[in-house]
Amino acid sequence: MSSHKTIIKNGRFLVPGADKPVLQGYMTIENDRITYIGEKEPLAVEDAHVVDGSRLMFMPGLVNTHGHAAMSLLRGYGDDLTLQVWLQEKMWPMEEKFTGDDVYWGASLSVLEMLKGGTTTFLDMYDHMDRVAEVAELSGIRAVLMRGVIGLCPEEVQNQKLAEAIAFARNWHGKANGRITSMISPHAPYTCPPDFLVKFVQAAHDLDLPMHTHMSETLREVEQNAADYGLRPVAHLEKLGMFTRPSLVAHGVHLNDEEIEILARYKVGVSHNPGSNLKLASGIARVTELLKAGVTVSLGTDGAASNNNLDMFEEMRLAALIHKGITGDPTAVPAPEALLMATEYGAKSIFLDGVGRLEAGMKADFIAIDIDQPHLLPHTDLLSHAVYSASAKDVEHVWVDGRQVVKHGECLTLDEEEIRRKAQESFEGLLKR
Amino acid sequence: MSSHKTIIKNGRFLVPGADKPVLQGYMTIENDRITYIGEKEPLAVEDAHVVDGSRLMFMPGLVNTHGHAAMSLLRGYGDDLTLQVWLQEKMWPMEEKFTGDDVYWGASLSVLEMLKGGTTTFLDMYDHMDRVAEVAELSGIRAVLMRGVIGLCPEEVQNQKLAEAIAFARNWHGKANGRITSMISPHAPYTCPPDFLVKFVQAAHDLDLPMHTHMSETLREVEQNAADYGLRPVAHLEKLGMFTRPSLVAHGVHLNDEEIEILARYKVGVSHNPGSNLKLASGIARVTELLKAGVTVSLGTDGAASNNNLDMFEEMRLAALIHKGITGDPTAVPAPEALLMATEYGAKSIFLDGVGRLEAGMKADFIAIDIDQPHLLPHTDLLSHAVYSASAKDVEHVWVDGRQVVKHGECLTLDEEEIRRKAQESFEGLLKR
Repeated sequence: MSSHKTIIKNGRFLVPGADKPVLQGYMTIENDRITYIGEKEPLAVEDAHVVDGSRLMFMPGLVNTHGHAAMSLLRGYGDDLTLQVWLQEKMWPMEEKFTGDDVYWGASLSVLEMLKGGTTTFLDMYDHMDRVAEVAELSGIRAVLMRGVIGLCPEEVQNQKLAEAIAFARNWHGKANGRITSMISPHAPYTCPPDFLVKFVQAAHDLDLPMHTHMSETLREVEQNAADYGLRPVAHLEKLGMFTRPSLVAHGVHLNDEEIEILARYKVGVSHNPGSNLKLASGIARVTELLKAGVTVSLGTDGAASNNNLDMFEEMRLAALIHKGITGDPTAVPAPEALLMATEYGAKSIFLDGVGRLEAGMKADFIAIDIDQPHLLPHTDLLSHAVYSASAKDVEHVWVDGRQVVKHGECLTLDEEEIRRKAQESFEGLLKR
Repeated sequence: MSSHKTIIKNGRFLVPGADKPVLQGYMTIENDRITYIGEKEPLAVEDAHVVDGSRLMFMPGLVNTHGHAAMSLLRGYGDDLTLQVWLQEKMWPMEEKFTGDDVYWGASLSVLEMLKGGTTTFLDMYDHMDRVAEVAELSGIRAVLMRGVIGLCPEEVQNQKLAEAIAFARNWHGKANGRITSMISPHAPYTCPPDFLVKFVQAAHDLDLPMHTHMSETLREVEQNAADYGLRPVAHLEKLGMFTRPSLVAHGVHLNDEEIEILARYKVGVSHNPGSNLKLASGIARVTELLKAGVTVSLGTDGAASNNNLDMFEEMRLAALIHKGITGDPTAVPAPEALLMATEYGAKSIFLDGVGRLEAGMKADFIAIDIDQPHLLPHTDLLSHAVYSASAKDVEHVWVDGRQVVKHGECLTLDEEEIRRKAQESFEGLLKR
């Protein structure tokens, strides 16, 4: 990558948590880093590309901490069904047929949607992950990728899948200028027997990588865990040693006070997926209690088959809204906290340093919103507008690792027309096979 | 209006409730009516304007059945506050200063946002309603407008406000080629004493108009009603004779079984406002029970100060999602029902005949969505995409009463740039006064 410099003039910058959460001024970017942000014009940056920020609001890129990108091929293929019917009659029969090419085009469709919608980092747990890594590398997005392993199979197959997961992590962790990192990811306590789970913990130790798994998404799986192993999922995973590794669990809908305390003690992050949890009727996570206990709560879309889009603005808004409605407290999850969950807490929960904040020294992963639109006026409080009024389609420009990847709503790194066509063809092919 | 004819070729049309909810084919419009919709090409329509529908999905225009358009001037002016602080320290002091011009520019901003976002009909309850009616007339939108009256004032002022409400209804009901209709609207049982409420019922009888009011939005007002009058709000309004008129109540969050039964018996509609109810932490309406009891449930955004946008796709999606999450039943409020709530049930609940469905003989209020976008692919089930994946910003074209008012995302009837500027100036003026 050749050296390049950018200066943004007269922009509005969101800095949640700061004394002045909406800063008006300047930001400079050199190579992959933010080098300056402030109200005063910086010293001249030679040969810098100048961006006029006067109609724009800049904010950290959104961080999607749980999903299955290739599942966008099944968006709208099954809705309003009980979980068992949805899985057994709709998702699993189709997913069984997924080839590497299906995963490539499904992931391309998702990455295209995410980049255009302001998501600059995503976590993906699926199969055929080499093909997802190709998409991540090509597109310029930041990605935390892992082979998600379901262990309900003979030991021989289990070991083969584990070897795949390890090989993938070895091959891709740190690649693409460091934009791609990896974690070790057994699918869930209810799909991986204890002795198999222990092997993942060992692999994570050996590779010095964090861990990710689905946990306590439905009441049924919590009850099943207690019946099978005499422990609820949190105590079960603690006992198997998972939390000796830095860990992120997805969902965490059904947690009691003691479990929240354990997660806080081990600094286990929770990826809150409000859209998917509502749509599948899994329940509503105890986010206000988790935050109060000091747990890092981030946001994820889950796969597009249970969401049904990858708009992180929507997840932010849902997180800010539903916990008010449920608790009866209109001050619950205020706008700045929802924005932090979608940005800084997101990066922290997937163990990325230097990502998620507009600050000198941080990675230049940021987005610009066109604020001169009816639904973002008047300009009372732009941070409020980002959380409560904006959507993915308001994103005008996107930069990742200092490189502009979306300009005036067009993705510069991917061939949108080809991806749209191939995604449709992939779905039609799956229907026919 | 000069006679005009349009034929749409090769479109996809949403017909929720029909055997084939996604019809592929043709639709013709002559003057203000749909004259044909079907799979086969119709007989030639002479001199018709031809629309190529091949990249588009057509659906009935969205019907927003509760709101306060001028409050968009206060979007983002107060968030994450308790209801009393929000009202007493933020909303009321600013609203007191609203002039007719403020209402005009606030309503213009809202109507612009709504039209561009696919809302073809809105209900508005506020003050300075002549100015809102001007906006409705100019913009081409369909509107149900009413002077909302708060009666916590001396009898003389009460009577003056009532006279205003009556005069407004007389002047505007049936105007703008019938696009503007009116209702009689006391603000709420907790802001209008019983004897004053009775006068509104009489006025509605005299003018032969339906009624609209806020009801049971918060638990506190329900308890206050019981303490003050010995009755919960539903029985209270029944006793005062309101339900002898065709009626729509907004919110209806806190209802017991008996109250739901009373509403069903009198065919009182409920405008469900999920976004606002969540944001103000009012609670979650018992929508599945209301629908089961046969109550017509429609959707409203409420004012943009408590939402904070007027995207009816979002309200549709919230309605489809939150009741699944709350009841634990993923089949609750399925996509076709959510779409009906936002269209046909919407029109029915505000007593508009011939609006809300794509069908020969119906009013030509319809919108077109660009479906060749990453988040709306693959084309598995377009009705699902409309409810679970789309947003206001996906709206490409809008027709109301047979007239195109939005083309390629641009409003043809309003001066967007002027409205954006004036709305910002109005807010700044309110801050200074």
